[in-house]
Amino acid sequence: MASFTTLSQSPPKLLFRQLFEKESSTYTYLLADCSHPDKPALLIDPVDRTVDRDLNLVKELGLKLIYAMNTHVHADHVTGTGLIKGKVPGVKSVISKASGSKADVFVEAGDKISFGDLFLEVRATPGHTMGCVTYVTGAGPDQPQPRMAFTGDALLIRGCGRTDFQGGSSQQLYKSVHSQIFTLPKETLQYPAHDYKGFSVTTVGEEMLYNPRLTKDEETFKNIMENLNLAYPKMIDVAVPANMVCGLQDLEPKAD
Amino acid sequence: MASFTTLSQSPPKLLFRQLFEKESSTYTYLLADCSHPDKPALLIDPVDRTVDRDLNLVKELGLKLIYAMNTHVHADHVTGTGLIKGKVPGVKSVISKASGSKADVFVEAGDKISFGDLFLEVRATPGHTMGCVTYVTGAGPDQPQPRMAFTGDALLIRGCGRTDFQGGSSQQLYKSVHSQIFTLPKETLQYPAHDYKGFSVTTVGEEMLYNPRLTKDEETFKNIMENLNLAYPKMIDVAVPANMVCGLQDLEPKAD
Repeated sequence: MASFTTLSQSPPKLLFRQLFEKESSTYTYLLADCSHPDKPALLIDPVDRTVDRDLNLVKELGLKLIYAMNTHVHADHVTGTGLIKGKVPGVKSVISKASGSKADVFVEAGDKISFGDLFLEVRATPGHTMGCVTYVTGAGPDQPQPRMAFTGDALLIRGCGRTDFQGGSSQQLYKSVHSQIFTLPKETLQYPAHDYKGFSVTTVGEEMLYNPRLTKDEETFKNIMENLNLAYPKMIDVAVPANMVCGLQDLEPKAD
Repeated sequence: MASFTTLSQSPPKLLFRQLFEKESSTYTYLLADCSHPDKPALLIDPVDRTVDRDLNLVKELGLKLIYAMNTHVHADHVTGTGLIKGKVPGVKSVISKASGSKADVFVEAGDKISFGDLFLEVRATPGHTMGCVTYVTGAGPDQPQPRMAFTGDALLIRGCGRTDFQGGSSQQLYKSVHSQIFTLPKETLQYPAHDYKGFSVTTVGEEMLYNPRLTKDEETFKNIMENLNLAYPKMIDVAVPANMVCGLQDLEPKAD
């Protein structure tokens, strides 16, 4: 009689939700470890105007929010991080050290952010801004398969973030995408911070084949990025100062 | 020494994409069996203005589109089905027999729509319109887990479709949701035809707990639906006649 070998425990179970903010076409991502008794959760790139929607969903799903994370200092919308910290005590804000922004937790390439038995790896992907990072789910057999990469504005679906402000550099972005994202398994699901055409997800393999910018050589990419003739972002003068303190300026004690 | 029992074949692999059309806040769904040599695919609720986007994605992913399906005769946008049939020979349009609309394939409750080794079950969920159906992925171990339900406008995320035109009936909708959707496993992923708040997915269990309308008793539900005071849909006079022929009117031979 054959004997059966089974896992003594089920693998950790990821709860995953993609949430959209229409005004800035921003995606916010909710991830939680549902197999853990606390159901610890995190939000990536929350937007101020959708904080109540997001926190209500967290509550309905019985999750415990522990991190509000940003891929970078956004120029096109105000992060919801500060508002979330004011509404849910104990939540820690997370951003890259290289961003120069305020936060509770600063991350660098190679760091891990754990929530229950699941974790995200931090990859440095500067070029859209100098502090951009990509968060990638773990590589182990006990982590979600296929892997998932939250690329912020470094790599969009068939596009990428602009490189003409906030320390942006087309050379650096080209290097970031090729060394940090295109080296992931091709089936890795790639979730961007924005989409303007109604796409919700892509894969690393698809972008390596069809991204109209990043499939070009570095010189052609640089020329494309230098000739986009984009308008000055309408939110930048409000969004960047607010986001440099992760929206926390209103929470600080008043001097008077 | 322990012997290991493994599956002789990997289970069929579902490729799944959620696509959004902003003007009507409509979700279109692309499903394909990627483990099948032909990669047969189908689109649920395509929109006319995003047909080129959707067909380009089908092409890039190397899929063979075989069905363009509708959950019902839409009143708020024109289906992309007719356009798709004109652009991709061999694609068959699918709609419920009860819709009274033209199509290549008419489905009824209990029918199966196969694409490769995967299939969708048809459930009759009238009430928003008399011909509404919900397409649900199969229940077998060789089908995607958790199951996925494409509910059209019968059940939205924390909402439902209106019941005041196109043969709508709040009593019928209440019965449809409770008998055909709330009887699915609670972990079933539920994908609606529209969302207006930036949600992308819910589960049957969540809606059974938190849907503000369908968690009420039938009488309360009926009162809610009778007092929504919604405006006449701006697209209805264009959309319904076009969709009754699945957008095919322009493909028919001219009489002159």
